[in-house]
Amino acid sequence: MEKQELLYEGKAKKLYKTSESDVIWVEYLNQATALNGKKKDLIKGKGSLNNQITSLVFRMLTEAGVPNHFKKKLSETEQLIEAMTMFPLEVVLRNVSAGSFSKRFDVKEGTPLAKPIIEFYLKDDKLDDPMMNEDHIQLLGLATAKEIKEIKKMTLEVNKVLQKLFKEIDIQLVDFKLEFGKQADGTILLADEISPDTCRLWDVKTGEHLDKDVYRRDLGNLVPVYQEVFERLLKLESI
Amino acid sequence: MEKQELLYEGKAKKLYKTSESDVIWVEYLNQATALNGKKKDLIKGKGSLNNQITSLVFRMLTEAGVPNHFKKKLSETEQLIEAMTMFPLEVVLRNVSAGSFSKRFDVKEGTPLAKPIIEFYLKDDKLDDPMMNEDHIQLLGLATAKEIKEIKKMTLEVNKVLQKLFKEIDIQLVDFKLEFGKQADGTILLADEISPDTCRLWDVKTGEHLDKDVYRRDLGNLVPVYQEVFERLLKLESI
Repeated sequence: MEKQELLYEGKAKKLYKTSESDVIWVEYLNQATALNGKKKDLIKGKGSLNNQITSLVFRMLTEAGVPNHFKKKLSETEQLIEAMTMFPLEVVLRNVSAGSFSKRFDVKEGTPLAKPIIEFYLKDDKLDDPMMNEDHIQLLGLATAKEIKEIKKMTLEVNKVLQKLFKEIDIQLVDFKLEFGKQADGTILLADEISPDTCRLWDVKTGEHLDKDVYRRDLGNLVPVYQEVFERLLKLESI
Repeated sequence: MEKQELLYEGKAKKLYKTSESDVIWVEYLNQATALNGKKKDLIKGKGSLNNQITSLVFRMLTEAGVPNHFKKKLSETEQLIEAMTMFPLEVVLRNVSAGSFSKRFDVKEGTPLAKPIIEFYLKDDKLDDPMMNEDHIQLLGLATAKEIKEIKKMTLEVNKVLQKLFKEIDIQLVDFKLEFGKQADGTILLADEISPDTCRLWDVKTGEHLDKDVYRRDLGNLVPVYQEVFERLLKLESI
């Protein structure tokens, strides 16, 4: 398979066409951004870690029966995924109060939520990714009621699988962001990445942030932290 | 019945206890506020118009079978209402894109929505009334799933009744904000006010704003505009 023209350049990834119309070549970048791109830095090693972590996590989700877009890790920074029509939505699941949720509703960071809650955001940097309710999503034609229901079901399922995996390596899964796509026949697949860029991960013993909050909040160097998550996940693999 | 101690002072109303524990005495104020209180002015005549308009509209809703808190207009600026436990929610229904919705999702003001959409906001000035989804409402214990369903049903019913009423007096009901309360036995009643302070009302023929946007957007004097809405509603009464 060959990498062909650039399809899309995001903040942390480049997507390329391949010789097969249903396969996309992803290259993970060393760029870190926060505050909707207002803070931006080049961090050597980040792209490689996120690609390897995401590849591992998606393989584990496949084993757990969660339908997803992951095909194959190609190199330290590259992977192949299924081409799909993406829903322009960011789907956030929260197990514990943190970040924007804590601020928005004045709920102390670290407060466990009685049950997981799901939030939808419009994926639109120009509009600053506004939060949406299900009426908004349907009205703007982004997903049908049935698709929203399926996406929520899959998000809760991903949460169950990931909570269990991370617990085994002493990590608390605080919250995470997912994206979904749709195949030509309407089948919904989990897409995008799952990494310390898209999850809040707290060390169970020390409470330390093992995720992008290290960068967002200037708590130190992100690379050894992501490396730590990767190594713990590798241990899980070899069990 | 006698007015007793002050229970609550809002931006546009004062609520007083009465000798009857289930009855509240409301006094409408001449104060106009916008931008969550950042813009504030005294506008003579506003309290009287809003009290009279709300009294009329609630009486019409009662006739149409919508359970609500309104008991009796006492004077130009005062009315009696049912005491209840209020849901700390602002329930917004939109028929046409306008205001924050237009900005948030970049949908041109005036675009009709394919069907009415409902939004919930936490009534909390300190937090700047953040938008909530149904997971948030349940998690924070503000209303149960069943109560949310009932509130949405009642909001759609109010929309049907008000759209019809306003259409007869050449006014387009663009959007509106409702509040709800709960009686001791769990019965949910429509509460608060329905006036040009809480609705977007556009003149069908001229497109003119007949609502608080006149004040929010500095389009002129609010009093003759509210007077116009009141007079048109009075015509409806005499039909």
